[in-house]
Amino acid sequence: MKLICTQENLNFGLGLVSHLATRSTNLPILNNVLLKAEKGELKLITTNLEMGIKLSVRGKIEKEGAFTVNAKLLSDYINLLPKENIEMELDEAILNIKCQNYKTQIKGLEATEFPILPEVEKKNKLVVKAEDLKDALTRVAFCAALDESRPEISGVLFKTSDNQLIITATDSYRLAEKKINVVASQVSANQIIVPLKTINELQRILFNQTEKEINLFFNENQILFEIDNIELISRLIEGQYPDYQQIIPTQKKTEAKIKVGEFLQAVKSASLFCKPGINDVKLTLLPEKSELVVLASNANLGENITNLKVEISGEDNEIVFNYRFLIDGLNNINQEYLDFEVTNNSIPGIIKPIGEDGYLYIIMPIRQ
Amino acid sequence: MKLICTQENLNFGLGLVSHLATRSTNLPILNNVLLKAEKGELKLITTNLEMGIKLSVRGKIEKEGAFTVNAKLLSDYINLLPKENIEMELDEAILNIKCQNYKTQIKGLEATEFPILPEVEKKNKLVVKAEDLKDALTRVAFCAALDESRPEISGVLFKTSDNQLIITATDSYRLAEKKINVVASQVSANQIIVPLKTINELQRILFNQTEKEINLFFNENQILFEIDNIELISRLIEGQYPDYQQIIPTQKKTEAKIKVGEFLQAVKSASLFCKPGINDVKLTLLPEKSELVVLASNANLGENITNLKVEISGEDNEIVFNYRFLIDGLNNINQEYLDFEVTNNSIPGIIKPIGEDGYLYIIMPIRQ
Repeated sequence: MKLICTQENLNFGLGLVSHLATRSTNLPILNNVLLKAEKGELKLITTNLEMGIKLSVRGKIEKEGAFTVNAKLLSDYINLLPKENIEMELDEAILNIKCQNYKTQIKGLEATEFPILPEVEKKNKLVVKAEDLKDALTRVAFCAALDESRPEISGVLFKTSDNQLIITATDSYRLAEKKINVVASQVSANQIIVPLKTINELQRILFNQTEKEINLFFNENQILFEIDNIELISRLIEGQYPDYQQIIPTQKKTEAKIKVGEFLQAVKSASLFCKPGINDVKLTLLPEKSELVVLASNANLGENITNLKVEISGEDNEIVFNYRFLIDGLNNINQEYLDFEVTNNSIPGIIKPIGEDGYLYIIMPIRQ
Repeated sequence: MKLICTQENLNFGLGLVSHLATRSTNLPILNNVLLKAEKGELKLITTNLEMGIKLSVRGKIEKEGAFTVNAKLLSDYINLLPKENIEMELDEAILNIKCQNYKTQIKGLEATEFPILPEVEKKNKLVVKAEDLKDALTRVAFCAALDESRPEISGVLFKTSDNQLIITATDSYRLAEKKINVVASQVSANQIIVPLKTINELQRILFNQTEKEINLFFNENQILFEIDNIELISRLIEGQYPDYQQIIPTQKKTEAKIKVGEFLQAVKSASLFCKPGINDVKLTLLPEKSELVVLASNANLGENITNLKVEISGEDNEIVFNYRFLIDGLNNINQEYLDFEVTNNSIPGIIKPIGEDGYLYIIMPIRQ
């Protein structure tokens, strides 16, 4: 193997793929990045066996070949080099790297020992705007259950149809859902559960991407995200996602139009005075006074009350939430006003942005 | 107690003083800030018994009085309020706070329970430019010993004379010294050891200060830093600071003029290939070739070599440093070039910025 590429391209590629090469003591090769020089490009590949990333770097391949070296070491080292051409050459089991007056020899392991990434047949295809997917994941994925005791909700649900992709996550205390339009679809109605770790990796990749569209391919067991020269392949979560439609309340008793910024401010103030461990903030809706009262109190610290002037219709009502779940929801409303629907203190409350379709946030109340 | 002040002033003051009010379970009052409304201003006072901060906030005092409440809670709450007037009124053992439509009641403890800060007689006075002190502390204090097994070096040495303040710190592996000019002095030659925690607190205060000058007052046991409306009072460390002048080498064998940025880059690259736990980087000075060779190697990972073109005079020489100590020193050279003096691998190496007087960094070599 012998090749020349620019520091910028290699550095960008390694920055993206090296993240997956975690410190595995059981299988040391998983700490490595597979470098594959073939067909006029250098492929960088890492995997943690649950998912894998493949990325192509443009370069001048003088001699084809493959090798693996510690991904973090190579990434850190290349990152320190000047923005010049880098020469890499394999000599026995040592990778020689030269760049101006910097010379390095890195020991590695044979490419043949590296696990093979599964191939996803490019059959079920869905194309979405990168920006839409990024936005939806940011505003939904944080609701997924972090512990894996209930594996089916430790991922994000992708429900596909020919013109929409519905993205949902819940940890059973709150739920977020975002519908996005698809650019092109070759799939029938279907649903898959993508592991949260894969979603986080995808978010990391999308963070610095200027690519406009993303291709998704999937089968029963795997999903492939294709973003320009990057491929992210992951296993899917088996199991049945809960039928969450049935918990979305349809019979609201009270509805309020609230300024998001003011609401957030009041809940944050109240949060300082919650009972520890319960984190309870009481919301009292008073249609006649056009008032929303946000209250928290604690026998040791004191109490906090904010009266917000809001438009309310329906009955007097009262509901108690964990302030963390409420703040999480409010932080994901990008509009000036939100619509808040309450039935009673045993049925989830609903928050929706006013002026944006397709986003929904539901919180379970704390029964008192 | 009853008063009105602006959110901005109170917020700034609480942000500064609340930091010292740590979570003390032995003495709960130390979590609190003492609010003292008297003589037309509100004094905020916190202490951790090792040091204390006093800060005056301008305000309209309608009724004098004093009370204490949890500092973090008050600071977090005031920080969330709009930039408007804040009304505070003490009612029995409850502090009532009002600001627009925000209302809060905070429970607290009597002011009489709050420890009294020691007074430092304003006799030994030294005035320095805030900017000079800030710069000197940043570039020296990081060398102080973090563990307190040798208390005398777990602080920063202040050596005073009528026209200079010499600031020094060492952890016995490396040492930094910076001399600054004093604006005014009413002290004789003297030396005191200021605890590192006090220095860090002072740095935090100076970080956001635009004040031009700082007054220092001290006696045998205490020091007082006076910065505009803020007073930081601290105990001093007892004991004899090591006589470090005798370890500063005077007989250099080799001297090099090195570009700081290039040196730093080479050492960082080498650091990736050091032996773990030893962190050794070997520097070889070759006057005939005008070359400095920076090398690290590790049987598992590989090796890294950078050849830097530098001006060198004197003998061929070789010295091995812990890369962390070397990088720390290089990061504090604000000039383009540095002067590097080596005697042999048993005597400390010296680094000085070229073009700036009064700064010195010394590193102990790793003997091989």
